Amino acid sequence: MAAKSVLATFTPGQLKTQEVEIQVEYCGICHSDLTMLDNKWGLTQYPFVPGHEVIGTVAAVGDAVTKVRVGQRVGLGWFSRSCLQCNCCVSGDDHLCLTGEGMIVGRYGGFAQKVRAHQNWAIPLPAALDPATAGPLLCGGITVFNPLVQFDVKPTDRVGVIGIGGLGHLALQFLRAWGCDVTAFSSNPDKEVEARQMGANHFIDSRDPQALKAVANSFDLIISTVDADLDWDTYIAALRPKGRLHLVGVVPKVSFQSLPFILGQKSISASPVGSSATISRMLDFAAQHRIEAITELFSFDQVNEAIAKLRNGKPRYRLVLKHT
Amino acid sequence: MAAKSVLATFTPGQLKTQEVEIQVEYCGICHSDLTMLDNKWGLTQYPFVPGHEVIGTVAAVGDAVTKVRVGQRVGLGWFSRSCLQCNCCVSGDDHLCLTGEGMIVGRYGGFAQKVRAHQNWAIPLPAALDPATAGPLLCGGITVFNPLVQFDVKPTDRVGVIGIGGLGHLALQFLRAWGCDVTAFSSNPDKEVEARQMGANHFIDSRDPQALKAVANSFDLIISTVDADLDWDTYIAALRPKGRLHLVGVVPKVSFQSLPFILGQKSISASPVGSSATISRMLDFAAQHRIEAITELFSFDQVNEAIAKLRNGKPRYRLVLKHT
Repeated sequence: MAAKSVLATFTPGQLKTQEVEIQVEYCGICHSDLTMLDNKWGLTQYPFVPGHEVIGTVAAVGDAVTKVRVGQRVGLGWFSRSCLQCNCCVSGDDHLCLTGEGMIVGRYGGFAQKVRAHQNWAIPLPAALDPATAGPLLCGGITVFNPLVQFDVKPTDRVGVIGIGGLGHLALQFLRAWGCDVTAFSSNPDKEVEARQMGANHFIDSRDPQALKAVANSFDLIISTVDADLDWDTYIAALRPKGRLHLVGVVPKVSFQSLPFILGQKSISASPVGSSATISRMLDFAAQHRIEAITELFSFDQVNEAIAKLRNGKPRYRLVLKHT
Repeated sequence: MAAKSVLATFTPGQLKTQEVEIQVEYCGICHSDLTMLDNKWGLTQYPFVPGHEVIGTVAAVGDAVTKVRVGQRVGLGWFSRSCLQCNCCVSGDDHLCLTGEGMIVGRYGGFAQKVRAHQNWAIPLPAALDPATAGPLLCGGITVFNPLVQFDVKPTDRVGVIGIGGLGHLALQFLRAWGCDVTAFSSNPDKEVEARQMGANHFIDSRDPQALKAVANSFDLIISTVDADLDWDTYIAALRPKGRLHLVGVVPKVSFQSLPFILGQKSISASPVGSSATISRMLDFAAQHRIEAITELFSFDQVNEAIAKLRNGKPRYRLVLKHT
């Protein structure tokens, strides 16, 4: 299904006291932009403006804004606002706010000249990061970084990453910097060389059942970035006793057998993006370790071409739109 | 399917250096005795002797036994031996030993006059515990106690227990002593009064969809003790963000939708019994808090009657065999 382009007028109104207005320089294209464009989660309101991996400069600030200043370069990710009152928000989990506002849910996102957000989600970009490639960190990056922080991953852990795409190629880089022994699981053996360059110590062809069996009982953590139904029992079997399978890719349904899962005291967990504080920490960590998305740049005029590439092709590894 | 009784002779041979021989006084009947009797896990060797909730006194010890002495009262649970060499054993997880020996797997269990085990699994019984009711702690009890230790359950947590039977009625007692706010989920509203006496602060009829919906986003932990397929999505929805569904009951297949699971940063975990050290700690905790299985006593002569009651009826809450 291809969405139809329409020209709509929009008056943003007065900037709220806690809001910042960002002059967009770059915006990454995330697979969830496509999912929303096609209304596959049933959340989309048309006319729809995608975009939630924004890099830009602060063009204006509301009266109560203290965290950023006009002219400062910031990043915006999935969230544009959280309530700052619920138990999640006051417990350091503003990304789990039950009434949080998604950048492209019921409002216009970052495929635009300007976009607004609550100041807490306009995260200052460290000077060492290249603004042209930093956008994908704000959604794809934080999605794979968050579990490392939230689930206490240790440098001594043996970690697998399923799917070496937009999320997976950042996961490999983060995990190498984290000190882990890293295995890439991919259905595309052509990616082995690049996966190793990005941080994988081992590469396993996920379409080879024997290769998967050979690593039984060996992983502390396996992060799945894919949106396809997999044989989860095989990956659960690949976990050590007490190991964890962590899902960041949305799949229709997860099914697994309970007996081996119980006997091995194993876990399946999942997470979305990460808190504003964790994003900030991730950007510092990325700057320190020179972690960078591998991107292909398109001008905003080429947006339909870029969307088509994401829809039909296999970007290596992340697409970014740029204002010319 | 009813197993046929056979009279078989058995010569145990010389006691090994690390082994103890236990004179059985009592043995609880666990649902997994029935599962094994019927070979539903495909692990059973016939002739089969069930029994892995043994209370008895040490009758003889091998040359290298230092942890217990002849005449001492001990309990034996699911395991009779672990290797003490693998990573799990040397990391405090002897219940996850990949070559651990189950009391009733490939050997004869506790429905007997005497039974043997490695000294590490013959756990001294605190004097304050009644030997007539302590047997069920050694499997049913540790199965629901272990997650409280392993998954860092806090007294401030709101915890649900699905299934108020042999395991669930012990879970309620442990959780009350742990300080938690406890909810019993049962398909049998007749159990409400007893569930509250055992520690439930709240009781929910699990067959009432409205009652389940009303507790959405409220539990830190839900422990499922049942062996039935449930609507796991409903229980996942009942978890708070970052909440955990923990399985100790073996169900054929677990299926759930990933999107709400990801957005709420939730987990599903599972565990079998517990380490020998955790069993010992549990017995002390049970003695301190007067936690006791509610049992119905049968003589060993009545074993077939007891098995039939477990198979067909609804024991309240645990059956124990006694030598007369």
